Order: sequence, then C-alpha cells, then structure tokens
Amino acid sequence: MNELKFHLIGQFKLSSDAAKAKDDVAKLMVKANEDILRKGAPPGGGAEVVNWNLDENIITVEIKSDRYVRAHDALLRLRRSLAALLGEHHIGIRGVVIEEFTIQLPSEEALKKKIPFVKDMRYEEGKILLTLDVDEQQIENRVPDRIINLIMEKIESRKYGKKEHWELLWQSKKKIHKFREDPTKELMKRNWIKHGAGRGQWIFGPQITRVFRAFGGIIEDEILRPLGYHEMMFPKMVPWEVWKRSGHAKAIYPEMYYVCPPKTRDPEYWEEVMDYYKVTQEVPLDLIKEKIDRPIGGMCYAQCPPFWVFLQGETLPDDIFPIFIYDRSGTSHRYESGGIHGIERVDEFNRIELVWIGKPDQVVEHSERLQERYQHVFDELLDMQWRKAWVTPWFMAQEGLTGLAEIKEVGTIDYEAYMPYKNDWLEFQNLSVNGNKYPDGFNVKLQSGEELWSGCSGIGLERWGAAFFAQKGLDVENWPDKFRKRVGELPEIFKFL
Amino acid sequence: MNELKFHLIGQFKLSSDAAKAKDDVAKLMVKANEDILRKGAPPGGGAEVVNWNLDENIITVEIKSDRYVRAHDALLRLRRSLAALLGEHHIGIRGVVIEEFTIQLPSEEALKKKIPFVKDMRYEEGKILLTLDVDEQQIENRVPDRIINLIMEKIESRKYGKKEHWELLWQSKKKIHKFREDPTKELMKRNWIKHGAGRGQWIFGPQITRVFRAFGGIIEDEILRPLGYHEMMFPKMVPWEVWKRSGHAKAIYPEMYYVCPPKTRDPEYWEEVMDYYKVTQEVPLDLIKEKIDRPIGGMCYAQCPPFWVFLQGETLPDDIFPIFIYDRSGTSHRYESGGIHGIERVDEFNRIELVWIGKPDQVVEHSERLQERYQHVFDELLDMQWRKAWVTPWFMAQEGLTGLAEIKEVGTIDYEAYMPYKNDWLEFQNLSVNGNKYPDGFNVKLQSGEELWSGCSGIGLERWGAAFFAQKGLDVENWPDKFRKRVGELPEIFKFL
Repeated sequence: MNELKFHLIGQFKLSSDAAKAKDDVAKLMVKANEDILRKGAPPGGGAEVVNWNLDENIITVEIKSDRYVRAHDALLRLRRSLAALLGEHHIGIRGVVIEEFTIQLPSEEALKKKIPFVKDMRYEEGKILLTLDVDEQQIENRVPDRIINLIMEKIESRKYGKKEHWELLWQSKKKIHKFREDPTKELMKRNWIKHGAGRGQWIFGPQITRVFRAFGGIIEDEILRPLGYHEMMFPKMVPWEVWKRSGHAKAIYPEMYYVCPPKTRDPEYWEEVMDYYKVTQEVPLDLIKEKIDRPIGGMCYAQCPPFWVFLQGETLPDDIFPIFIYDRSGTSHRYESGGIHGIERVDEFNRIELVWIGKPDQVVEHSERLQERYQHVFDELLDMQWRKAWVTPWFMAQEGLTGLAEIKEVGTIDYEAYMPYKNDWLEFQNLSVNGNKYPDGFNVKLQSGEELWSGCSGIGLERWGAAFFAQKGLDVENWPDKFRKRVGELPEIFKFL
Repeated sequence: MNELKFHLIGQFKLSSDAAKAKDDVAKLMVKANEDILRKGAPPGGGAEVVNWNLDENIITVEIKSDRYVRAHDALLRLRRSLAALLGEHHIGIRGVVIEEFTIQLPSEEALKKKIPFVKDMRYEEGKILLTLDVDEQQIENRVPDRIINLIMEKIESRKYGKKEHWELLWQSKKKIHKFREDPTKELMKRNWIKHGAGRGQWIFGPQITRVFRAFGGIIEDEILRPLGYHEMMFPKMVPWEVWKRSGHAKAIYPEMYYVCPPKTRDPEYWEEVMDYYKVTQEVPLDLIKEKIDRPIGGMCYAQCPPFWVFLQGETLPDDIFPIFIYDRSGTSHRYESGGIHGIERVDEFNRIELVWIGKPDQVVEHSERLQERYQHVFDELLDMQWRKAWVTPWFMAQEGLTGLAEIKEVGTIDYEAYMPYKNDWLEFQNLSVNGNKYPDGFNVKLQSGEELWSGCSGIGLERWGAAFFAQKGLDVENWPDKFRKRVGELPEIFKFL
C-alpha cells in the first residue's frame, strides 16, 4: 500500500572521539527503537533506526518511518537523548547533517512543479518520491511537514479545481428598473467622475462624493450608532509582519501593490536621480529600482488586518466584549485584472470596515443583527434588488483556498446587486464570521481562557455606488424619497467647455 | 571676462554627395553668420560658424557662441536652413552628430559632482569647463540648457546654503500650561494610541479618534461650510505623471514610499513565492524584488497634486470661480528621518486638504478669509498658544529650493504651536498661495485667457492632536468648554490587563 513513508540518513558531529561511549550509544539505539521513536504512534508504528555507526567523532544513523513519528522528528528525538547521554562522557553534539532524506507520498498522478527544498521529484506506481535538501534548522522549523502539506494541497486543488462555493441564502423581489445603462459611462458623461492618472483609479467629483457621504450617513445612523460601534483609525501601509499573522502572506502576491522605502533618506544618495530628472525631465526608473529597498509590505488590501496589532499579544478581560469598531480612514488598493475598469472593479477604492470581537455566540449573534440592519437599509432606504449568498470565506479565498470553513458558523456572506445594464449580479459588500482566525494569528486571549472570535464586514463605497446607480440612474428625481432628502442638492461647481 | 561660452563641432549626414550644392552652402554659411545665427541677440552677440567643410555626404561645422544664441540652438537653426536649401537639390539630412561640445561657465570655485551627460568637467581660473556627451534628440529636448541650470543651482546652493526663509507674521499671547509632559508618552500610557507594525505608524484607538473627529467637526462647521467648500475624493496612489506636473519629481525621492505593481497578475508566476512562504513561513524578499515592476509612483505625499488631473488640459468658464474643494479620503506617507517618532513626526498621517482656485485676487482674498477662520478656531475654540510665519513656499521646499517666491503674494504660512514639554514650537498646519503653479503644470486655462491661480492648506490631524494635547493634556476636564462639549464622552471600550 502506498502510504506516507520517510527515509533519512543523518550524521551527528561530536566535539571529540566517542569510542569510549560506544556501548552506551548502542544501548540507546535499542531503547530508541523500542520506546523513544515509538512514543505517540499506534502499536507497530513510529520510526526505526535501521542502521547506525560510530566512527571517531561522527555518529551516522539511518532512519525509516511512517507518518506517526516522521523520520526528521525521530532525528530530533535522537539528538536530545544522545546529547544527554554523551554529556555524561563530556562529549557535545556540534551539529547534525542530513545526508539523505527521501519521502514517499501517495498520489494517483505525477506533479510537475518546482517545490522549494526539493532537489528531486519522481513519480512511480501511485506514489511521488521526493528527495529533500534541508538542514537541521529547516527540520526544526518544520519545513519537511510544510512541503508535504503543500504538495498535497496542489494535488487536491488540481483534482477538485478552484471552484468557489456559492449558495443562495436570500433574495429580494424583482424590481422594475427604468435605468438600463452602464453607470460608469453615465458618471463620466456628467463629469461626476474622471479617470485618475493611475490604473483603475478614479477622481470623484463633488456630486458623487455627496452621494458617497449620504451612504456614509446612512451607515452611521442606521448601522454603526444603533449597533454600538466606535470609530478607530487603522494604518494603511501594511508590513509583511501583519500579513504573516493574518494569513494573507500565503497568497496575496499577484494582487498587491508593493511598497518599497528608499535605502536611505540622505539627499546626496538621491542627487544623481534628481539631477537626471532635472536634466531630462524623465524619471530614471532603473536607477531608482537600484536605490530603493526590498518591499516592506504593501498598500492596504483588506483593511482590518493592521488593526489587530492594537491587540497583539494581549490578554483581555471577558467583560469588555462584545466590542464593535470601524475604520473609514483611507483607501484600499488591489492590482486587479485588466479589461473592464468602471467603478465596479477598481485598483483603488474607499471602504468602511466594520469589525466585531467577542465570544463565539456573541460574534455569531451580532452577524445576524448586522444582516437585519443591512436588509433594512437595502429594502427600506435604498430600495434595491439584491440577494445574499453563502460563499467561500474571504480569508480562505485570499489565502488561495476554496470550499467552506470547517465550523459551520464561520464563513462569508456576499451581498450582490442586480445590474440591469448587463443582466448580471455585482458583489457590493460582504460580511464574515472569521472564527478564531485573527485572535489566533495575533495571539489575543481572553482572561477566562475561553475562545475569542471576530467578524468583519467591508462596505465599498464604489460598489454601493455602482449598484445604486445601475438600478436608479443618476437623475435625483428617480431616487427613493428618503435617500433623496438625505443627499440634498447636488453641488454643481465645475463646468467644462 | 568669464562669461557663458559654447563651442560645438557637429556633422550633418546627408542622403547623398552634395558637391553640386557647395556654392549654395557656402552662401548659406555667410548668411548664417550675418543673420540667421544673430537673430534675437544684441549687436555683436549670437553664434558664429567659425569653420565648415563639405566632404561628399557630410557637412562639418564648428560653432562658437555666447549665451544669446547658444551653439546647440545655432546648430538646430542651421539644420533647418540647410534642409530647405539641400531640398532644392533633392538631398536630405539623415541625421546630426555632435562630435564635440564644450561649455564654459563662470564660477568662483570648482564643482566636484557627477552630472548626467557630462563626460568631463574641469576648473580653471574662474570658470568651469564642461564637455558634454549629447545627441541630436537631447539637444532638441533642451538637455544642455538644463545641465547649465542644474550646475548654476548647485553652485548657488553651496554659496548660500540651504537655509529656509522664516519670518514671524503674528503670535498669540503666552498662556499658562498646566500640562508639561510629552503628549505621545501620555497617549501611549493610556492606550489611546499604539504603535502600528510599520515605521512611524500609529493605530488610533476610540478615544483619540473621537478627538480627531471633533477636530473634523470644527473644521467642517467653522471653516468648510461657512467658506463654501465642497468635498471631493482625490486618489491616494500617485503616479510619476502627476509628480512631473506638480514639480515633486524634482526632489521627492529621499522621502517617498515607492509603489511597485506585480509584473503580472498570473498566479502561476507567483506560485514559487507562495510555495516558498508556505514551506518556510518567511517572505522571500529578494525573489519578490525580481518579480515586481519598476516603481510606478508612490503613496500620497502632498494630497492635492492628484486632484489636478480632474482639470488637466481643460479650459474653464470664468464665472465658476472661485472654487473651494477639500479631500479627507485617506492617508499620506513620508519616509521621515529616524529618531523621535511620537505623533509629532510620523511616516503615515491623516490630513484634511483644502484647495481653492480662482483668479489671483480671488485666491489671495480667500487666503485672508481662511486665515481669519483659523485664528477664530485656535483662539476661541481650542484656546491655543500659537503663531504664524511666512516661510519658503512648501512647493519650493519640496522641490529642493530655498528663499521665497518671486511674486510677493505667493508663498506659504506655517502655523506653529508652542510645545510646553520641550519649550519649542511645532508646525501643525500650513496655508499656501501657489500662484499659477498648478494650473500651469496641469495645463488648466480660463476661457478669458486671464491667469488662473490656486491655494491649498493641509490640516494634519496628528499635528493638531500633538499641539492640543501638549498644551491641554489628556484630561477632558482641562479642555476648553466648547471643545469638551463637542467631544462628548470618550469611549472607553478596551481594557488591557
């Protein structure tokens, strides 16, 4: 049967000749195969030293194992026991060298990929044979285990594809839409928006900004205030450290805008660049690329991750929860796919981000209350045709995962609006219960030791606008009364000839 | 006397042997020295062809000149005349080669700098001798003139130093300050702020965000609404194109956060990076640096430049002015010098940016009205000890220039607050009349042809906070009544053990 199997040859480099300890070492190897390398495995399972040798100051071991005590873990167990034993002879272990390390992984087909630290990969009869090139440090850092996970993930994703989960939860009644144009085209025609100088970037004129602020007012009056939210200001430049903890570092790379600082702030270091620009009126990009540092992170992508640094490493009293906070202090940026670049899909966007934190029941209950408030806003105030669906959680999607979370209360609801001009739906916001993902990643604990959960919901102003304008058009008289009153008179301050 | 002098040897490459046109060329050279290369220069001045030669399909010319008709301009004038003349003989000019080009510049001392397109620079007796390495295209693009400007700028900046202008305009009465601590330390002690994960970056908790929003409310009620401002949303990722037009491209490099997009959004291209991260839990920065593109610009630095793209290239009717707009849609980022990193000097900050546009008298008049409103706010509502000073205009400082603007109405006022804890002053906002700088840079015109000016004023929330807390402390009961009412009860939602 093709099971996970490991074969490792390693050497312990000693501080001096260990001939005098040879008998003790021999006894240890026997004990290892009976006990030390079996611990935790079911009967008959675990690792085994199938060969060993002591030659002056080198002990060589050959280990075979199953998945219960993996050969590289067995090697670390052996080192610990050996160190204790040799210490009695005043001999130290200077280092461990991995001479050979092969892993056999069951698979129905070959995988043609370059995997880090894998120097050879072959396929034969239902199994993948890996030869690793790792050192002691990498074994301690669990690199071999992660290589196995990565390969299994790749095999699975090829088998089941990248299909995201989508399941309708609720939909509003169909409505009659007088307006059937592409809202972006109409917004441009009226000069409510103009292209910014960057890709997928817009400059929002006074009229549409007034509409966005009316959305903001609704969100404040109908959602944030009644539900007890308080405003904070989250940072907008996001270092790797944050994305490592939030999980984004697993898969964010194709979509992020990278941020690089100058290597130094010394004006003399930059004089060459300034001079070149002053003389040619062209920015010397290749020269600049040499003079900037490696990226320290990127521009805000998901908005709530950098908040969690506020709580990182803290233990918090139970009675302050549930906590409701939000941020609306800046833009988010994503390197989106080309093609359509209306306000429906942009590289730079403005979002109000809600975060709630508490015990699991508090978080789940709040998700329901928040859904009710949203429903009220979309039905009563904005009169939208919309629906909501249970989808692959955003944090799984952003980590390149598919399917659903393991716990059924954890997941994401996408809100979608009907777009009459293309007879299709547009996701215009979402709402997620993230389980213990963030408290776990940022090491935030409850004093009682109970589990801490969180949820978040991102309200994209451009998406709300795209959905609203697509259904209602840009003529104020066709907007729902309550909303029209809130917007007031649209400021018409620019005129273009 | 040591004056600006030019010496150039150039060759016109012709499409065929021009022997038959030699007499006509000779006549042209005579006419050039009498007329064509003298036009625009005072009597006796201009350029002169001191030698020329026609050898098959090459015409070589040696030109000497003063500053009135510079030798490289003379070469272009000659090309034009020659092209017309040779055209009659059905001969074309295929190209122009600069064989030798030296410039003599008066200077009291040598300049030891590497200058672009300068292959040699020597100093002798009151003059700098430059040998340029430029081609026809670069002459057309005025590279030699910009090299001269650059060198003169460097000589002057060394002579007069980099001292900024500072002239007191007004100061409030001294006040008695009960609070004398560093406000940042106190803010941290009370957990109103915590360090973000990035350099010079803070996370603002609910209490201080409430204070910032109270500042925002004052700005809205006392300044924006009474003065007729309308909100817009300016982009926050700023491409080079914008900074070339705003002038920042001259000198912003040591202080900016550079933004690089991925070379492609193809997930397969990034798989290697994701795999490395998944296996090691470390982000492979060197590999990423290879996979990202050259910087396309940077994170928002001065806030108003990207707005001007909204008006770029437009001609606007006179009667829509003056126009007052503002933006508060996101953060600004500067790579600041190390050392003190309280909320007084940060790499990431939140600012409300006011822009006004109109004819010169409208812009100057509005600057005065705005100053009155600020005075009212700082004296009546916030009860601050402050002063204002006339300084090197921000747009000159950010282009690496010193001194004052040429027109006396154009310039910057810095607002400074007294900081009791260090017995020093902190610039907490500014206000500038920018003259025609932006309309000029972005090619915005008035229908009447009259000049268009603009002004801007940046209100940094962190700076307002630093100044206010430094003078008033963090205890609400010590704050001015009107402000305390506006803030209301501070939300105390987090408790840390």
